[in-house]
Amino acid sequence: MRPSAPDNPQSDLRYRDAGVDIDAGNEAVRRIKSLVAQTRRPEQLDGLGGFAGMIGLPGGLAEPVLVSCTDGVGTKLLVAIATDQHATVGIDLVAMCVNDLLVTGARPLFLLDYIACGELEPGRVETLVAGIVEGCKLSGCALLGGETAELPGMYNKGHYDLAAFAVGVVDRKRILAPERTQAGDVVIGLPSSGLHSNGYSLARKALLDPAYGGLDFNSPLPGADTSVAEALLTPTRIYADAMARACETLGEALHGAAHITGGGLLENPQRSISEDLAVALDLRPVERQPIFHAIAAQGVPEDEMLRTFNCGLGMLLYVDRNHCEQALTCLRNAGESPLVVGDLRARGNANDPQILLTSG
Amino acid sequence: MRPSAPDNPQSDLRYRDAGVDIDAGNEAVRRIKSLVAQTRRPEQLDGLGGFAGMIGLPGGLAEPVLVSCTDGVGTKLLVAIATDQHATVGIDLVAMCVNDLLVTGARPLFLLDYIACGELEPGRVETLVAGIVEGCKLSGCALLGGETAELPGMYNKGHYDLAAFAVGVVDRKRILAPERTQAGDVVIGLPSSGLHSNGYSLARKALLDPAYGGLDFNSPLPGADTSVAEALLTPTRIYADAMARACETLGEALHGAAHITGGGLLENPQRSISEDLAVALDLRPVERQPIFHAIAAQGVPEDEMLRTFNCGLGMLLYVDRNHCEQALTCLRNAGESPLVVGDLRARGNANDPQILLTSG
Repeated sequence: MRPSAPDNPQSDLRYRDAGVDIDAGNEAVRRIKSLVAQTRRPEQLDGLGGFAGMIGLPGGLAEPVLVSCTDGVGTKLLVAIATDQHATVGIDLVAMCVNDLLVTGARPLFLLDYIACGELEPGRVETLVAGIVEGCKLSGCALLGGETAELPGMYNKGHYDLAAFAVGVVDRKRILAPERTQAGDVVIGLPSSGLHSNGYSLARKALLDPAYGGLDFNSPLPGADTSVAEALLTPTRIYADAMARACETLGEALHGAAHITGGGLLENPQRSISEDLAVALDLRPVERQPIFHAIAAQGVPEDEMLRTFNCGLGMLLYVDRNHCEQALTCLRNAGESPLVVGDLRARGNANDPQILLTSG
Repeated sequence: MRPSAPDNPQSDLRYRDAGVDIDAGNEAVRRIKSLVAQTRRPEQLDGLGGFAGMIGLPGGLAEPVLVSCTDGVGTKLLVAIATDQHATVGIDLVAMCVNDLLVTGARPLFLLDYIACGELEPGRVETLVAGIVEGCKLSGCALLGGETAELPGMYNKGHYDLAAFAVGVVDRKRILAPERTQAGDVVIGLPSSGLHSNGYSLARKALLDPAYGGLDFNSPLPGADTSVAEALLTPTRIYADAMARACETLGEALHGAAHITGGGLLENPQRSISEDLAVALDLRPVERQPIFHAIAAQGVPEDEMLRTFNCGLGMLLYVDRNHCEQALTCLRNAGESPLVVGDLRARGNANDPQILLTSG
């Protein structure tokens, strides 16, 4: 060990010398304060010490059940980093958590974010949090807390990771439990906005790798009037308003829902249906955005497309057949363009597949 | 764009080719399933679809308030990675979140984890989750969900990051709000187990950098009978049992608590007291573990030690002076070695400091 020299100010070793800039952290906190305040919910409690966020439950719930999930944005962040466009990945972050919540029948209540970076840039943090705040507003949830961690040596310069945790609440008797789904239910699909935040390692390889598409971020995307970067960074659609209206309007006629997230259309639709049912989807009326065609054109087989991407459908609703028109109307009123894409069917035996896809 | 060749299996481009191994992900999920089940709480709801975790509220709360916080382990992970010792950083992760919860008077209810890595190794994930499960058991919280993200290109080989998010619940009238604290309250300190999970960038620089301590992980730590690695990886102490007993035994005589986390003893004690009070701490009876002395010996000034590290105290309790002995007994019964380290004092005016430290 080097001899101690605490009295020699030249030899002072401080936290900043180790790559952690507390002033930058405080500056980031200052910048995001007014943004975060925009997400305030009436149930929040303030002034109770700064160690944790506090919030009461919304009124009118007979038996409140908390619903919680966590997700990140994945390697979509590498696109944001490479193009220096950080304004919307916060929306993606919120969307990936909140869409998982919604399919249980819950309403989002609050969210916390975790931002980790190698070097804390207050302006960057502000931009990221502005996107998170935008996502929280679209979801109706309070940004109740967060952590911004400066971790020199763990992230390369300019790199960062994002994670979020969302909590919603649902009355126990209103949970969209799998046993609600029934043979004959109609499957209504809500279009995605594009890739959302899944499959970016494959998408980037297909589009950008010189051995495959070899495109640049600024190249026009084939078949589209946007650049590759714009298509890749399109924010994930948040279905909070659509699901809130569907739950309210349809009541018990809404039997279930599925978020088409990692695992794509092959692995998600059957996650929220009864064991004795199968989902039959006819994808032919679903319009896939140009980015899906551009990826497939690089030799990604259809089964891999379906297992990796949402292929144009971000959310499925399972609805009592007699309420199909009512559902379509209410979803259109929420700004969606719903499509009937299939139905639920009795499964002959436990070895039969739970998912049956007809694609173009 | 390369011409499409979807009928040629040689040219198939699959997710695995892009560095994402779904089989490894499924294997990790299989391995951790029985571990996670060990944290089950009676309020949990199962079999309700796989998109989100669900849990009811504990009974007996007149007006439940949810308390939530998020944190990571910071660059303590670089020590775990460099020494290939991953068994206890999960405890740190839980501790950093749960100790923040506890100081509000809340009991932990559930936790979710986020594990991100460049290459998913199922055995590594299992080890990390085993630590998280251990931390959850020590805290009494259910591990309600999590995300394991394989993000090639975002993390260097062998590197990973951890974040967690904890939710607790407290009856509104039992919240340890700052206005409960009073001049004359005694400050009881609970010893830390070492560095906990703060200040590792500075600690590593001081101990390991050839320009400073120049020690190896396997070197004996000066003044201790452990190696540098053992001292650095000592798990963060979780104060869940101590705080639960203190809340129960002391009732309204427990006025507040502070978790000595990032910002150390200079910035945390005053975070949960009334504006018109100051915390006066006499640190002379506090025994600092050898690692603190080894760091200070490299030229880290005392003010920087106090602003960065817990310096031997992981948690402070603010207690009605007439209940001091009762508090000490109840904390000893919870396995702690409590110390009286100061008191709360009236602050003359708003410009007077809120923290007064006497150190050795």
